Amino acid sequence: MAQDKKVEAITARDADFAQWFTDVCRKAELVDYSSIKGIFIYRPYGYAIWENIQHILDGMFKETGHENVYMPLLIPESLLQKEKDHVEGFAPECAWVTMGGVDQLEERYAIRPTSETLFCDHYKNIIHSWRDLPKLYNQWCSVLRWEKTSRPFLRHREFLWQEGHTMHATAEDAREETLRMLEIYARFCEEYLAMPVIRGRKTDKEKFNGAEETYTIECMMHDRKALQSGTSHYFGDGFARAFDIKFTDKNNQLAYPHQTSWGVSTRLIGGIIMTHGDDNGLVLPPRIAPVQAIVVPVAQQKEGVVEAAEALRKALAGAGIRTKLDATDRSLGWKCAEYEMRGVPVRVEIGPRDIAEGKCCLVRRDTGEKTSVPAAEAADAVKSLLDDIHANLFAMAKKNLEDNTFDLATWEEVRDMIQRGGGFAKTKWCGALECELAMKEKAGVSSRCMPFEQSGTTGKCPVCGKECTTDIYWGVAY
Amino acid sequence: MAQDKKVEAITARDADFAQWFTDVCRKAELVDYSSIKGIFIYRPYGYAIWENIQHILDGMFKETGHENVYMPLLIPESLLQKEKDHVEGFAPECAWVTMGGVDQLEERYAIRPTSETLFCDHYKNIIHSWRDLPKLYNQWCSVLRWEKTSRPFLRHREFLWQEGHTMHATAEDAREETLRMLEIYARFCEEYLAMPVIRGRKTDKEKFNGAEETYTIECMMHDRKALQSGTSHYFGDGFARAFDIKFTDKNNQLAYPHQTSWGVSTRLIGGIIMTHGDDNGLVLPPRIAPVQAIVVPVAQQKEGVVEAAEALRKALAGAGIRTKLDATDRSLGWKCAEYEMRGVPVRVEIGPRDIAEGKCCLVRRDTGEKTSVPAAEAADAVKSLLDDIHANLFAMAKKNLEDNTFDLATWEEVRDMIQRGGGFAKTKWCGALECELAMKEKAGVSSRCMPFEQSGTTGKCPVCGKECTTDIYWGVAY
Repeated sequence: MAQDKKVEAITARDADFAQWFTDVCRKAELVDYSSIKGIFIYRPYGYAIWENIQHILDGMFKETGHENVYMPLLIPESLLQKEKDHVEGFAPECAWVTMGGVDQLEERYAIRPTSETLFCDHYKNIIHSWRDLPKLYNQWCSVLRWEKTSRPFLRHREFLWQEGHTMHATAEDAREETLRMLEIYARFCEEYLAMPVIRGRKTDKEKFNGAEETYTIECMMHDRKALQSGTSHYFGDGFARAFDIKFTDKNNQLAYPHQTSWGVSTRLIGGIIMTHGDDNGLVLPPRIAPVQAIVVPVAQQKEGVVEAAEALRKALAGAGIRTKLDATDRSLGWKCAEYEMRGVPVRVEIGPRDIAEGKCCLVRRDTGEKTSVPAAEAADAVKSLLDDIHANLFAMAKKNLEDNTFDLATWEEVRDMIQRGGGFAKTKWCGALECELAMKEKAGVSSRCMPFEQSGTTGKCPVCGKECTTDIYWGVAY
Repeated sequence: MAQDKKVEAITARDADFAQWFTDVCRKAELVDYSSIKGIFIYRPYGYAIWENIQHILDGMFKETGHENVYMPLLIPESLLQKEKDHVEGFAPECAWVTMGGVDQLEERYAIRPTSETLFCDHYKNIIHSWRDLPKLYNQWCSVLRWEKTSRPFLRHREFLWQEGHTMHATAEDAREETLRMLEIYARFCEEYLAMPVIRGRKTDKEKFNGAEETYTIECMMHDRKALQSGTSHYFGDGFARAFDIKFTDKNNQLAYPHQTSWGVSTRLIGGIIMTHGDDNGLVLPPRIAPVQAIVVPVAQQKEGVVEAAEALRKALAGAGIRTKLDATDRSLGWKCAEYEMRGVPVRVEIGPRDIAEGKCCLVRRDTGEKTSVPAAEAADAVKSLLDDIHANLFAMAKKNLEDNTFDLATWEEVRDMIQRGGGFAKTKWCGALECELAMKEKAGVSSRCMPFEQSGTTGKCPVCGKECTTDIYWGVAY
């Protein structure tokens, strides 16, 4: 940061949510634009959030028996074409390599938009017997989709993600895996990102290209729009048949294995920003914040202040809290505004008066509340404050979700809800594609999911009026 | 692994080292071939070694103040062309994207072969004042170079690496960084991979495209060939000038910053294999082995054996040793051969007799030596054995390096050394490119480095006979 960097106000959330979002991404130094439209640079602070997400999720994947691999970046066109639905969905948005060095390639290669075909090509080589199953693989990488529009974290041509790809002896095992991984995503969002989720199944229209079933977790952003935050797909044996992957089962019969894939991406960071951020900038959930506590000396030119601040930093860091000290010559006002913008959960201030009293002052990012605590107890106090902040962020997001979810009966009511300011509409649905399309056209909403928690009651489809039992959520989605 | 997987012998190292290497890569399940020539799949066991390398190095980078970022995968051709020497070196081996979706691109994009140009393009946006310096960035990613030949780990078209890119206010700071990072690589190789290194500077002929100075660590493989295992480059302000990156210094003058880059790749795994492996397969240095101890029950059908083995696994894992238990129904012989092939440092056997005596048997992968120890002391015993194995692997590699490094005076002696079986030749060198080229042509060797440890003596150039003082290493390199 340059010395003369101004602490400029950002656009207010309620004035222009999209502009507010972009302001936060830039001012908190999460991303920068690159020289290619739609491809962003992940700056250190943005990338550090992703590293924390990776670290936690990777542990959850390994605990459930998954192994990491790394597959090629490039997919020969003929390989991508093996599964019909899949190629139809992805080919139009692939970037294509046509030259290697100075030579024109005989076949063009797509930069991976997703890697089902690569995993299947490998699985064909290594799956032969029931003893080879299950294969529980995951990969951390970037993928590329040549989209027309772009927004930081929400829509990148190149974005970072993980993609799990697993193979199982039976459909039952594969279905169980699909739901197990969705539940891991849901737990991760709620317990680490403080984002409450709705777990459910996608309609056929919204499912992944080539999947039999797609499951999703849907979150509500501050502007009441939906963010699809993680998906898990059950493929049946469709790809296995297309790629001719067979194994000898326990009865010595040849069989096709059953497949899943599941992924989350740096979109989650967009979700964090839009769920918790406020008019002063980013508000980070403590468990993934790169800096959990920033120590700021007050009147630092006075004797002993910087030393006391450094002692405090050391005590907090020693207790396992991710802590930094800012003893630069910038003003206190600048520092407070800067770390608010960056969403650091707790600011710890210490000045001559605090030192005289053996105290320090803790300032919460979420509520602005200040507490004076004995310096010797600072580490415990910060730890418990971080838990409080997590709980408060979750509660506020949950309230936003609950206050803005409406049980509605007709498409007109849904349209009115959107015009009033948005939210999730919960209705019945007859299951017909035409009614789903009509909801889009007439009310401006897409189906988000059929939640796992079904009421079991009977009601009417909001479009055709037919009696039906399925509960479904609708909303405007990112 | 299929039930019927045979434990086939691999080619002996001395019979055909190249074939032995390929056998180990396949049989230890480190890599698989993909459907694109020259691009390999990193399988779970191979990738797990890389994850351990990443974890340790990433910690070393962060301790020295570096931050991770993620830059775009694609480089517009115009950007790659900004630094003349750089583009000349890399453009001929780039893969080129010419289509995005269904549209022909106006400008073609290279898949990054290395990212100096991308970092510079970003640094131009974020470096303005001396307060913005140094910038100490690193990135973990894959890069792509369209090479004609390929070998697992040693030469991939796509390979995994890290690339550090830093900017400094002064040439002195940048030079210090260049050497600091080389020293981190050297320490990492010696202390974690048990690979002794020679630290030195590359000749102008061998330096990186666009660099002013390139530093290297060179290791000797079992077949006496050299592996360049890590490099660190000092760029001066060449790229800064080409990209017009300027900052206001403390005297309020505009100045160009000074730059470094440094990298290691999955090549290191090739180095591990070729340094420590033997005719029974891989031998992994304990500190990066995915599994440090494998517990194998003997006569596991007998009552209590599997339970005792599981208790042992738990005790070892609890002591922080990466441990697995193989209680599958495969034969003891199969298991021993399999974990030898995979290079697991310690095998822990426990059977009815051991249980009766309250003992277990530790078998070293490097020497085959067996020790019986009280089961209650197994964790401490394994820990100390892992240190012994590291020390022994390092000592053996060091002996290979020392026994096969020769002080020589003429190019004929160097040629004879290569014909006798290879090694490193240490000679004087006058500094002339033509003498370096003559060594390649006449003796078949390339310059490896001018070691930091210079004798200070005077001698004769082995080609032209001129009096000179520079010590230099020559060898046949991977």
